[in-house]
Amino acid sequence: MSYDALRNLSRELQLVSDAAALLGWDQEVLLPAKGVAYRAEQMAWFSGYLHERFTRSEVGDWITAAEDEAAASEDPHAAANLREWRRQYTRSTCLPKKLVEEFAESTALAQAAWAEAREKSDFSHFAPHLTKLVDLSREHAERWGYEDCLYDALIDQYERGATTRRLGATLGALRESLLPVVREATAQAPPDRTKFTAHYPREKQEAFNREVAEAIGFDFEAGRIDTAVHPFCSGMAPFDTRLTTRYDEGDFLSSLFGVLHEAGHGLYEQGLERERRGEPVGAAVSLGVHESQSRLWENHVGRSRAFWEKWLPRAAEYFPNLAAVSPDEVYGWVNRAELSPIRVEADEVTYDLHILLRFEMERDLFAGNLEIGDVPSEWNRRFESLFGRKVESDAAGCLQDIHWSFGIFGYFPTYSLGNINAAHLVAAARRQDPALAEEMDRGEYSGLLDWTRTHIHRPGSLYPPDELVTRAAGGPATAEALVEHLRSRYLR
Amino acid sequence: MSYDALRNLSRELQLVSDAAALLGWDQEVLLPAKGVAYRAEQMAWFSGYLHERFTRSEVGDWITAAEDEAAASEDPHAAANLREWRRQYTRSTCLPKKLVEEFAESTALAQAAWAEAREKSDFSHFAPHLTKLVDLSREHAERWGYEDCLYDALIDQYERGATTRRLGATLGALRESLLPVVREATAQAPPDRTKFTAHYPREKQEAFNREVAEAIGFDFEAGRIDTAVHPFCSGMAPFDTRLTTRYDEGDFLSSLFGVLHEAGHGLYEQGLERERRGEPVGAAVSLGVHESQSRLWENHVGRSRAFWEKWLPRAAEYFPNLAAVSPDEVYGWVNRAELSPIRVEADEVTYDLHILLRFEMERDLFAGNLEIGDVPSEWNRRFESLFGRKVESDAAGCLQDIHWSFGIFGYFPTYSLGNINAAHLVAAARRQDPALAEEMDRGEYSGLLDWTRTHIHRPGSLYPPDELVTRAAGGPATAEALVEHLRSRYLR
Repeated sequence: MSYDALRNLSRELQLVSDAAALLGWDQEVLLPAKGVAYRAEQMAWFSGYLHERFTRSEVGDWITAAEDEAAASEDPHAAANLREWRRQYTRSTCLPKKLVEEFAESTALAQAAWAEAREKSDFSHFAPHLTKLVDLSREHAERWGYEDCLYDALIDQYERGATTRRLGATLGALRESLLPVVREATAQAPPDRTKFTAHYPREKQEAFNREVAEAIGFDFEAGRIDTAVHPFCSGMAPFDTRLTTRYDEGDFLSSLFGVLHEAGHGLYEQGLERERRGEPVGAAVSLGVHESQSRLWENHVGRSRAFWEKWLPRAAEYFPNLAAVSPDEVYGWVNRAELSPIRVEADEVTYDLHILLRFEMERDLFAGNLEIGDVPSEWNRRFESLFGRKVESDAAGCLQDIHWSFGIFGYFPTYSLGNINAAHLVAAARRQDPALAEEMDRGEYSGLLDWTRTHIHRPGSLYPPDELVTRAAGGPATAEALVEHLRSRYLR
Repeated sequence: MSYDALRNLSRELQLVSDAAALLGWDQEVLLPAKGVAYRAEQMAWFSGYLHERFTRSEVGDWITAAEDEAAASEDPHAAANLREWRRQYTRSTCLPKKLVEEFAESTALAQAAWAEAREKSDFSHFAPHLTKLVDLSREHAERWGYEDCLYDALIDQYERGATTRRLGATLGALRESLLPVVREATAQAPPDRTKFTAHYPREKQEAFNREVAEAIGFDFEAGRIDTAVHPFCSGMAPFDTRLTTRYDEGDFLSSLFGVLHEAGHGLYEQGLERERRGEPVGAAVSLGVHESQSRLWENHVGRSRAFWEKWLPRAAEYFPNLAAVSPDEVYGWVNRAELSPIRVEADEVTYDLHILLRFEMERDLFAGNLEIGDVPSEWNRRFESLFGRKVESDAAGCLQDIHWSFGIFGYFPTYSLGNINAAHLVAAARRQDPALAEEMDRGEYSGLLDWTRTHIHRPGSLYPPDELVTRAAGGPATAEALVEHLRSRYLR
């Protein structure tokens, strides 16, 4: 059976790619400095091996034969697997080797140039690399194909079915709804910072975060929390999901929200069907859905009043200065509005404006409506019009994010999709199950986890992302719930 | 050129096998419990892949062709590589797949049975598994071939060129020399234990160990120290050498000697030629030489009076109770003689008697002079005759070591070869370079490290182990220096 041959190959390559994931994780968390060059050789070997095995012509023959077999079958899992294998095979075989190598080489050079440019806050140092990567990405998009506009093909890498047009409409509407909220929220008196000024020892933060992560359902027999400069979550094998965070001894909330965010990703990975590991249908469906799970736990749970009513007394046992703080004060503090120029430090209400800015810049670049040389001035102009603040430097402006130096375009919008989906799903779950809502209002979340397990995690990639969210929520995702959520958080 | 094809293959497979080494390391140090089964599948994939790639018939053809090419060349590195590739190829291709699989399956079962047998202290539970593994090992040895006796083929896996006859003579002579030293040393009054009874916080141990490891030359930009239940050292890539140790908060010396031992292995790995990674000639030459490097730093450095004269003041800054202890008292304490029935807890002077016992048991088993059913009674009889103490249980006797459950026979003697080589090399280095000796007597070891770099580490596998040691020391290794060393340590 061609289908079985494909499934066996797919599982075998997953074993190997999960091994490569461990090497990648280790590189971010543990690898000694002098080991980096050799690790890069190892990572290149894995990419080459996985690509070579999956692009053999016999694989294409199996897919074609299995598609014929499957026409007679009714198994939706098999259909989903075949859809994904076909797509992966087409995408891997339609790029010439020369393009793949040139892209890999250009991104390696671009990363170094970006780091230096940001260090010097000098965009011109990065500009020729950005030009090169935009050109190569255009070539990718042309080969992959698209219906409406070229940028669609890039977005589609990260979020199946999302388009420039629909994202533009969604994010544009979000801007109109959010700007008044931002204005009103930033006009309020800022909360009292001094109550939170204290020394929060790292070991105490580790212990508290672990207790919280365990309480919301993260399984430490099937995962870990470690430390990394750039926090991430890696589902590197079934029953082996690893989060990372970083510690600021002046601010226990930074590592806590990092852990809640990554644990949200981790709960999704831990909730995938173990027996389907290695089948496309057993994998997480998209970045926009993945991000919905992290935002759900970070924001809808971790920044809620109910969460702090439950957890503040316990936090005060670890950090005695918190004994003098009320749940309301923590709630106000973790939901204060600030017009940060830096995306990764943005509050919840301005976060999507940062994404809108990046989405529109990328869209205009790929539509040919924006020249590379104009990126800094356009960035600054648009930022000021959105935030009412000037950008102080390229480093704090168009050079702040690492993504472009990796040649990643079309990725930023998935962050906003995550926010939209999270709010939409939480509202639906609360509506569908009043007991779950009542439990959440007591700071308990086992019902919420069960609901996401059933509606989001276990289906894996059985449905496209849009359909998955629509089925779960009983209706397609709109920004309505997100706006409602942010209004109630920020307007007091 | 066939030689170049072989070298490229060898380097590529090293990249992959180093990736597998990281997975193995991670399993001992970090892997969540529920991830173990999947990791086993991954490890099996790597074994299978590496075996399949190296046993293709084209590899045999390349070796034959390269041997013809090399006959005309004078490059000793190429000759050494070819010698090793030929040996590896012959050994990998001469075992039928059925035997390899049966062995893997039998050891998996044997390990579980051994753990249970040791738990219950009941050898009979393990006996059928031991019978099976001895039979399968016999079959391996028959296929690999041997000149004198079958056990030679097993020893040769771990120490090229070592034979049952020579090991028997060496270890037998060692017994005659050591027994009087043991008798005299154990008759002395034991040192005062109470001076060392204290709480040694783990973080302090970590910091002190790290300082010592750095001072003797371990490069932390090319390595790490982590925690594992069974300490080991893994040279998993060039510039990535990882030690593990374990902590007893009642005894800071346990983790310190663990670190010194593993750092000795680590210095050897860090000292191999980077550019030859992936060539057999660039690898450590044998277990007996590897163990000489760990014993050198653990015992000849770490248990010396000069070491403690230098390091005790610093140790007392970490552990205040040591301020009341003299260097002589530490020296006496770390070199006290005890007749431990357990090998891994043995002092330096009885350690080789434990090895002698195991060597003779294995030798007699494979010569057909010992029945499996008689192993416990023979073990106990021989232990009592060597140590003058009764064995209390199988768990503290013939079931104490894990090795047999892995089907590892012929490995134990390399521990004694390590002790013999270490003493022989240190004596030679001191004789050859009086400045180095004078430096060691001040607790400084950069000259000693340089000497081992030049004579042991950088040559890699250019010479067989015996020849390497003979060249380094200016004469073949005998037990003379070890006996001399132990007499001076233990007879006061």
